[in-house]
Amino acid sequence: MLKVPQYVDKIAPYVPGKPIEELERELGISRSVKLASNENPLGPSPLALEEIVKHTSELHRYPDGAAYALRSALAQMHGVDIEEIIIGQGSNELIDIAIRAFQQPGDETIMGSPSFVVYYISSAKAGGVPIQVPLTKDYRLDLNGMADKITDKTKIICISNPNNPTGTIVTKDELREFFKWLPDNILTIMDEAYYEYAAGVETYPDSMEHFRDGRDILILRTFSKAYGLAGLRIGYGIANKTITGAMNKIREPFNTSTLAQKAAIAALKDTAHVRRTIEINAQGKEYLYKELTALGIDFLPSHTNFIYMDLKKNAMEIYNRLLKLGMIIRPMGLADTTTIRVTIGLPPENEEFIRTLKEVL
Amino acid sequence: MLKVPQYVDKIAPYVPGKPIEELERELGISRSVKLASNENPLGPSPLALEEIVKHTSELHRYPDGAAYALRSALAQMHGVDIEEIIIGQGSNELIDIAIRAFQQPGDETIMGSPSFVVYYISSAKAGGVPIQVPLTKDYRLDLNGMADKITDKTKIICISNPNNPTGTIVTKDELREFFKWLPDNILTIMDEAYYEYAAGVETYPDSMEHFRDGRDILILRTFSKAYGLAGLRIGYGIANKTITGAMNKIREPFNTSTLAQKAAIAALKDTAHVRRTIEINAQGKEYLYKELTALGIDFLPSHTNFIYMDLKKNAMEIYNRLLKLGMIIRPMGLADTTTIRVTIGLPPENEEFIRTLKEVL
Repeated sequence: MLKVPQYVDKIAPYVPGKPIEELERELGISRSVKLASNENPLGPSPLALEEIVKHTSELHRYPDGAAYALRSALAQMHGVDIEEIIIGQGSNELIDIAIRAFQQPGDETIMGSPSFVVYYISSAKAGGVPIQVPLTKDYRLDLNGMADKITDKTKIICISNPNNPTGTIVTKDELREFFKWLPDNILTIMDEAYYEYAAGVETYPDSMEHFRDGRDILILRTFSKAYGLAGLRIGYGIANKTITGAMNKIREPFNTSTLAQKAAIAALKDTAHVRRTIEINAQGKEYLYKELTALGIDFLPSHTNFIYMDLKKNAMEIYNRLLKLGMIIRPMGLADTTTIRVTIGLPPENEEFIRTLKEVL
Repeated sequence: MLKVPQYVDKIAPYVPGKPIEELERELGISRSVKLASNENPLGPSPLALEEIVKHTSELHRYPDGAAYALRSALAQMHGVDIEEIIIGQGSNELIDIAIRAFQQPGDETIMGSPSFVVYYISSAKAGGVPIQVPLTKDYRLDLNGMADKITDKTKIICISNPNNPTGTIVTKDELREFFKWLPDNILTIMDEAYYEYAAGVETYPDSMEHFRDGRDILILRTFSKAYGLAGLRIGYGIANKTITGAMNKIREPFNTSTLAQKAAIAALKDTAHVRRTIEINAQGKEYLYKELTALGIDFLPSHTNFIYMDLKKNAMEIYNRLLKLGMIIRPMGLADTTTIRVTIGLPPENEEFIRTLKEVL
């Protein structure tokens, strides 16, 4: 009998979501609205799409495994050395690679709860021990509480900032304080997947400050959110060469596609698209705040493109009833939870969410 | 000080190859011919490219993480259950995932030498012990020799068939014999990346026979070779549900892009493109055999789209001199090796290879 290692076996099986077309066929609905995955409702950067069409005829060739052109563009943009940039199949893959590079079986990785679920899974499937620290009362990562959990076995601390699924941030001052007492044998992963939405907030930390201070920090950004390229799977990390060097030993040589690399370079230049994305998100957020307040629904002010709210009713039931109306949102946590996470969409999508929510409540 | 686990640290650092454009700029050459990566010289399937252009506007959405449509198509093609198919970012990623799923630190993975280098790296970077078994005198995988290396710690055996870089095969009878005595607690990875080129050979095994026999076998195929989609990063595996189930726990939820999935489905239907690919490869092989024989160069008859040859001169030197003439091939093995691997190209590319080879010898 084939034996699966216990730490792999005990991971909850991945239950793949059905594609929208399948779901619509089953439910007999059409034109459903998806506000479940924090995608950019404006669509991909048009410049990126032009670039894709230009490069399809090269697809029999392997991609540039070093992603030389994209890393050059990013190094220049951030004022760092090209060797301090690593490209991943989404920042998701880079979380996984960093954990495999720095956490041995039995080692501990500290994270918030709730926070981005990939930290937990990646730590566990590499035989590590994920340590979950509850959020503060105001639903923010509890950096002090996370500090209290540091032991000899702690190798990594994951900071989702803004935090998914709550949309809250840890502040500039809190992060500076954190780095003051953090032991220097621990890797800090600063997951900034929603960076572009929070960058304008005065108290939002500039994590590059800690990178320049020589800290062992891995800053993660993605093209899946504000840049609108989730379907291509591409993100990047900024870190010192010890960190990128170890991660490159784990990384597969051809981990991102030619089209993803080309599209990402073009998307970086499409600052107008990102600006429009931020604007329409701010407007949608304003509208949803107003409507949710009018409905008496508790929600957290968000620094991202999604809103975390407490419906005080079983979230799975609400989710299923919304689904039948063609509205796809994300119920959070376990079966008894009452919270959902809703992506901010285009104005008609937001209106449709409010309309259907009223109908099911 | 951040500490990298010893088994990660000791992996040879990945030295990224320069993109062709960079290389050409440095060497002051242009229009170089790349016969280094066993790509399809005819280019990607035209049907696949049409499909890509149709789906670019959806790229702000996450891919279907379950790759439902592609797995359905493959399940139907192979007459297996959809749950017996797993999709990877190239078969490369599936090797890595299978090893992480079934090999714990300290466990052993057996492979040929020389064989596809990813088996060694994936085993080592997961803290395993790669056991390399020299090929037979006729440069084929030595299944008996590999059997002799089985211990209590053996978890996986990797069979590259045809074998990269030698292009040789283990036969139907040899594989049947192998499965007769193989203990049932070992996973056999049948890496058939070059399947389409060997499928017509009478002695080439039908590995599906052993899958149907209920063996713990993972059959790997790719869209990077005969299908001409290396730049998109997509491949697949066929295995029983114990194996795909464990691998799905390791697999990242969105490991292949939307465009890769769409293109792969179209490429599967483009049987004409695969047929042309096989034909032009057979013609190129014939031509190269004849020319190499005339030059008195030792080469191995190949069941793939590449030829392994011994130049009896330092391969790195030959490689560098060919490079300056705009001819990119692959020197194999260590610094003192005299063997190279050359991809079979289009007729003018093959002629250019022979011309430049004559010039440097």
